[in-house]
Amino acid sequence: MAEYDWIEGRQPVLEFLKAGQAVNKLLVVKDSRDRQMQRIVALAKEKGIIIQEVDRRYLDKISATGRHQGVAAQIAAVEYAELEELISKPQDPAWPPFLLVLDGLQDPHNLGSLLRSAEAAKVGGVIIPKRRAVGVTPVVAKVSAGALSYVPVARVVNIPRAIDDLKEAGYWIVGADMDGELCYEQDLTGPIALVVGGEGEGLSRLVKEKCDFLARIPMLGQINSLNAGVAGALLMFEVVRQRTQSHRGH
Amino acid sequence: MAEYDWIEGRQPVLEFLKAGQAVNKLLVVKDSRDRQMQRIVALAKEKGIIIQEVDRRYLDKISATGRHQGVAAQIAAVEYAELEELISKPQDPAWPPFLLVLDGLQDPHNLGSLLRSAEAAKVGGVIIPKRRAVGVTPVVAKVSAGALSYVPVARVVNIPRAIDDLKEAGYWIVGADMDGELCYEQDLTGPIALVVGGEGEGLSRLVKEKCDFLARIPMLGQINSLNAGVAGALLMFEVVRQRTQSHRGH
Repeated sequence: MAEYDWIEGRQPVLEFLKAGQAVNKLLVVKDSRDRQMQRIVALAKEKGIIIQEVDRRYLDKISATGRHQGVAAQIAAVEYAELEELISKPQDPAWPPFLLVLDGLQDPHNLGSLLRSAEAAKVGGVIIPKRRAVGVTPVVAKVSAGALSYVPVARVVNIPRAIDDLKEAGYWIVGADMDGELCYEQDLTGPIALVVGGEGEGLSRLVKEKCDFLARIPMLGQINSLNAGVAGALLMFEVVRQRTQSHRGH
Repeated sequence: MAEYDWIEGRQPVLEFLKAGQAVNKLLVVKDSRDRQMQRIVALAKEKGIIIQEVDRRYLDKISATGRHQGVAAQIAAVEYAELEELISKPQDPAWPPFLLVLDGLQDPHNLGSLLRSAEAAKVGGVIIPKRRAVGVTPVVAKVSAGALSYVPVARVVNIPRAIDDLKEAGYWIVGADMDGELCYEQDLTGPIALVVGGEGEGLSRLVKEKCDFLARIPMLGQINSLNAGVAGALLMFEVVRQRTQSHRGH
């Protein structure tokens, strides 16, 4: 459990504090008094959080990522959301429901990066599988740069079944896949659940079959795949582009 | 030097072999005989590369990333290109010159990821600074998934001066910056050098002033920045979208 209880690094800690997330205590390295650190300490004080000065070596010891930059916040373990909550979220008439489904991602950097991009792309929630995939670890939290405070994550036992539930709720299921049509030529303005597969493997056969359509990013070089975090971000922002640009002139 | 001479991991090694890059020798873990490894070994044999079976512990020892997956290729150290070569590359009439300038990137994962995305987005070359930035390390090579074999990288002493040279050669200098105009509403179809700043800092003041214009990715959430690798990829692929979609119907 304790492993999952630290947020490290200045930007992630700052984002957590700003987001008003529950922080148990803040550890800062002794004699670290630059402006950014002062800002973190001031914000923590303002929120009545216990602040402890510690040796750099102590932070090195508890650090999961090795990149604490002199500060770590002890937080409550991540709380996962329920799939039903994500599906039934109050709807914004100007922004149709938009969810991200990650099928078998292994790399915490990719998950963290996708959460950060999802937050910026106004994704309402992220769905990940309980087994054979990375969960929300400290590395994920750090790489997400605070996005975890804003984007709910649901873990489900069975991704194909979750897709069925999404379909029933009126979502279009769009799979990221090289066999798909060019993403620029598809209509992504409706209620969408975007499904991104794991590194190397891509979408499983079953999940692929369940998709309403498949969307492809153009690959103009010799290598035929992108990093999963990048591919997911490109498709999320294609949704953003279509939704924000289609309103122009109306 | 030796540090820079190993490519590790199955996909990166496979891509290097497929790209016909000079490999001195291949190390594979004993008794590792699954299909992907057989494919790597067969390809290396075909190319007359020396193959050595080694203990897993030996690979663990020489591994820079700790993720060798049972295979490593000893390669010639990365050769950087000259800026002049990138600028004067033979031009494709259907694809105006397109370069990527990275100003002060620190994280090898971001550099590797940007190289991989650049290769897929048909970027003709990448320009990085010699100092205060990450160079092409084994981690970069691994994360680039073989893109280094196709995308030349030039290191320059002075990024603002390189920008001047690019301007003189007829490039439009486009900086990735939150103060810019929405990227979807800008014309990115001409000869372009896209400039992406370092993590956290973004573009330096001097570089920002030298840009012909600044392009912004819409941020619809609470956090006001994206991972540098993701931001760069989004803008590179906006160039791709505009260039490939503007030809429709002509």
